[in-house]
Amino acid sequence: MINLNPGERIDDLQRNGYSLIQNSKQFCFGVDAVLLSSFAEVKDGDRVCDLCTGNGVIPILLEAKTNGREFVGVEIQESVADMGKRSVLLNKLENKVSINQGDIKEAPQVYGRASFDVVTCNPPYMDDNHGLKNPDMPKAIARHEIYCNLRDVISVATALLKPQGRFYMIHRPHRLVDIMALMREYKLEPKRLRLIYPYVDKEPTMILIEGVRGGNTWLKCEPPLVIYEEKNVYTKEVKEVYGKE
Amino acid sequence: MINLNPGERIDDLQRNGYSLIQNSKQFCFGVDAVLLSSFAEVKDGDRVCDLCTGNGVIPILLEAKTNGREFVGVEIQESVADMGKRSVLLNKLENKVSINQGDIKEAPQVYGRASFDVVTCNPPYMDDNHGLKNPDMPKAIARHEIYCNLRDVISVATALLKPQGRFYMIHRPHRLVDIMALMREYKLEPKRLRLIYPYVDKEPTMILIEGVRGGNTWLKCEPPLVIYEEKNVYTKEVKEVYGKE
Repeated sequence: MINLNPGERIDDLQRNGYSLIQNSKQFCFGVDAVLLSSFAEVKDGDRVCDLCTGNGVIPILLEAKTNGREFVGVEIQESVADMGKRSVLLNKLENKVSINQGDIKEAPQVYGRASFDVVTCNPPYMDDNHGLKNPDMPKAIARHEIYCNLRDVISVATALLKPQGRFYMIHRPHRLVDIMALMREYKLEPKRLRLIYPYVDKEPTMILIEGVRGGNTWLKCEPPLVIYEEKNVYTKEVKEVYGKE
Repeated sequence: MINLNPGERIDDLQRNGYSLIQNSKQFCFGVDAVLLSSFAEVKDGDRVCDLCTGNGVIPILLEAKTNGREFVGVEIQESVADMGKRSVLLNKLENKVSINQGDIKEAPQVYGRASFDVVTCNPPYMDDNHGLKNPDMPKAIARHEIYCNLRDVISVATALLKPQGRFYMIHRPHRLVDIMALMREYKLEPKRLRLIYPYVDKEPTMILIEGVRGGNTWLKCEPPLVIYEEKNVYTKEVKEVYGKE
């Protein structure tokens, strides 16, 4: 029996019968987590680390979708990480998935340098922390670069990855130059890019990027990922990602 | 009366009644030149330089579409630049457009540092010059980085531009990381990006990018530019760019 705290609920993940503990005041996963877990390629036996894991949605989805060996999620907020820990127990995944409270900057020391095949991250997107009314609120911490910034994420990912290890991130298009320049600076060469457009005639709202530690310089750009066919109607591809078709 | 050399023909530019001298063995403009001239923003009175101008299609199209004051095109190949010179005469544009043979690396010295409002470039895309059978052929020179590479283009563009001057380039997606990293290195901050997809469900084949000399760091990504509705049928947007609707 798993305890629920006030404000928490259990949602169906639509994968393997798995469920996830969420709290709409603290952290709920969105389409970005689902798209990232679909974009990331985890091979049989891979060891996977998810940075800024929130309630652990990405490690739990990746465990459901792949034959990776071990999935570690690191989340700085104790109460949010605790939801993830209980979701792991709820789904009886404690042999393969662990969600831990901690600062990602300490992750290479805690989990081992060059010890992961895959690192994933759905980081705080916003680098403008000015004027935040409640910078200590869980949602602000998930969205703004308060405890970690893009350079931290990329430098930590490189440190955690084995040579030729793969990094997968979802982020905002307006940061793409920062992302590419930092990934190259840290020898995490961008190898694959996909722009996510809400509608086929609208500006992209998210980007998916894959980097390879020590990879050579050739970027593969993928077809556009369009979210909505029309209002409230997902495209066929997104329906498939959600496992609803 | 303008002389035509063997193999040359005169094509209708579908703009202002302008024509262009082309030679299918040396250099003919493609959809990339048309898309770049549509993406570039030339304000009233601007001084514009087009690097690697080929037969001058971009300066001539920009003169037709905008109220810029002066348009200079630089092309290293004498015979190709000569087609451009004769097209300028053919269209009676010698007061506003000049196409000159020269090495772009000497352009800041020849035309003045920090003297242009806009620099455009449709450069050689390919950085693999190995195995080229005829590296001195006009088409090879237009397509491969034989006489100038991406670093040359970007460093020259920065040198030619006034502070806050604008750079517009069309290139291949697989070079996007190189492009962004070099533009940032030369303080030509990428500000606007558009991916060009042949079809809505296919990988992009070209990218359009705008940089601003000394600009701040915020990239605007634009809606996808899709070329074909179906085989041999341009989308409405591309028809409009060609001035056929």
